[in-house]
Amino acid sequence: MHYETKSRSIVKALSWRTWATLTTAALVYIFTGKIALALTVGLLEVFAKMGLYFFHERLWQRIRFGKKEIPSFVLWFTGLPASGKKALADRVFQQLAKDGLRAERIDSNDVRPLFPETGFTPPEVHRHVKRCGHLAAMLEKNGVIVVASFVSPYRESRDFVRSMAGNFVEVYLKTTPEACEKRDTKGRYERARQGIYTMFPGIEVPYEESARPEITVEVDSLSQEEAVRQIVGYLKKNVLCGKQVKVPKPATVAVSGGSVS
Amino acid sequence: MHYETKSRSIVKALSWRTWATLTTAALVYIFTGKIALALTVGLLEVFAKMGLYFFHERLWQRIRFGKKEIPSFVLWFTGLPASGKKALADRVFQQLAKDGLRAERIDSNDVRPLFPETGFTPPEVHRHVKRCGHLAAMLEKNGVIVVASFVSPYRESRDFVRSMAGNFVEVYLKTTPEACEKRDTKGRYERARQGIYTMFPGIEVPYEESARPEITVEVDSLSQEEAVRQIVGYLKKNVLCGKQVKVPKPATVAVSGGSVS
Repeated sequence: MHYETKSRSIVKALSWRTWATLTTAALVYIFTGKIALALTVGLLEVFAKMGLYFFHERLWQRIRFGKKEIPSFVLWFTGLPASGKKALADRVFQQLAKDGLRAERIDSNDVRPLFPETGFTPPEVHRHVKRCGHLAAMLEKNGVIVVASFVSPYRESRDFVRSMAGNFVEVYLKTTPEACEKRDTKGRYERARQGIYTMFPGIEVPYEESARPEITVEVDSLSQEEAVRQIVGYLKKNVLCGKQVKVPKPATVAVSGGSVS
Repeated sequence: MHYETKSRSIVKALSWRTWATLTTAALVYIFTGKIALALTVGLLEVFAKMGLYFFHERLWQRIRFGKKEIPSFVLWFTGLPASGKKALADRVFQQLAKDGLRAERIDSNDVRPLFPETGFTPPEVHRHVKRCGHLAAMLEKNGVIVVASFVSPYRESRDFVRSMAGNFVEVYLKTTPEACEKRDTKGRYERARQGIYTMFPGIEVPYEESARPEITVEVDSLSQEEAVRQIVGYLKKNVLCGKQVKVPKPATVAVSGGSVS
């Protein structure tokens, strides 16, 4: 939450007064031709109006009219390991920052180390994706733009996140396991083939495509610049203009019942 | 994120002009005694300065000086089941709203139904509390005040949340399991005694007190009103004034490494 300090109102009053008094003095001079009168009225105006401006600013500080919130949204990058989600999401995040939009960046690789107990079986992946989706939705509900990147290979948990968010934009990085394996510099596919990683999407379990993701990025035929343009263009056309904005559903559901947390 | 619309600037310009032109006309009249001149200067000023004011407002819309953020914090209510956390946290939340402070309210009873797989063994409780703490810290990092209430009986997970938050205020509801059992209208202690609930804090496992919680509420000797005053008073004195504000640590830690989310 923001508020405006008294110093801001004082400096704005000084700034305004400079411009405004020069105008008044000029008007009085033009109409009377008397430079002394113009200066006297100008000088008196400086004192009388400076105070008036200050109180006018303080009054408007309490008025909400015309203070608008930029629509928030959850931009959810999903796709096979090594499909390029993190790099692309980082680039989009930077582009949003350049456009003056603050956002929170959530990447699976940043969250998992905080919760080392999280495994890779489907139920564990579901739980992880759902918890992170809940986090993203709560941030969005509080006016924060979220750029998230998770393999999130299962449709069910992605749809859970979608149901929790207000504006959910799914960005699917479409490619093949073969192309990903070639791109994979971390040797993850290799380890999955050796059986060190189990339930690895693209090797042991399939990536479950959504029926209609908001944005499909054809990773193998598009440059990163083109993909960034595609995504930011979509956001400007469909979300940031306020078109798609719906009142976010409450991210939490009040259900009573005994529980120990 | 907020911005000010052009309508706001226009209405502010009109509002200002009314007050300011009356002052100018009055000044000219006092000094010249000529009512016609006073009105002419006033009228011309209306047009010249209205535009000037509008552009002055648009210019200041880009200046960050004096726009301050209200310090955010995580207010974490902890204590035995039926110690009165939810009711007290709700009352504090309402009081903050009355004081014009928006906050997010997170209660374990609202989060658990979203993740029904979360159990009540110590590792599951740790995981649940840590995930919710991560959520609270991310909200706080993005300028959102968080009022959270969780039994969170284990010191380790509470300290994890503390380490993630910027401003962490632990509110410990101090009471005895016996007093809680008397207050317990949901029959949770009863079910714990019958063995239906296992690992129940206060019955099977102890509540691990923190060495020095920021606020200790003596539940059994204080009225709810007094407790609300105690907590809000603490916040006003130590947090909202900006005293305790530190730059929040990043809630996520960038660690690279292969992972499937």
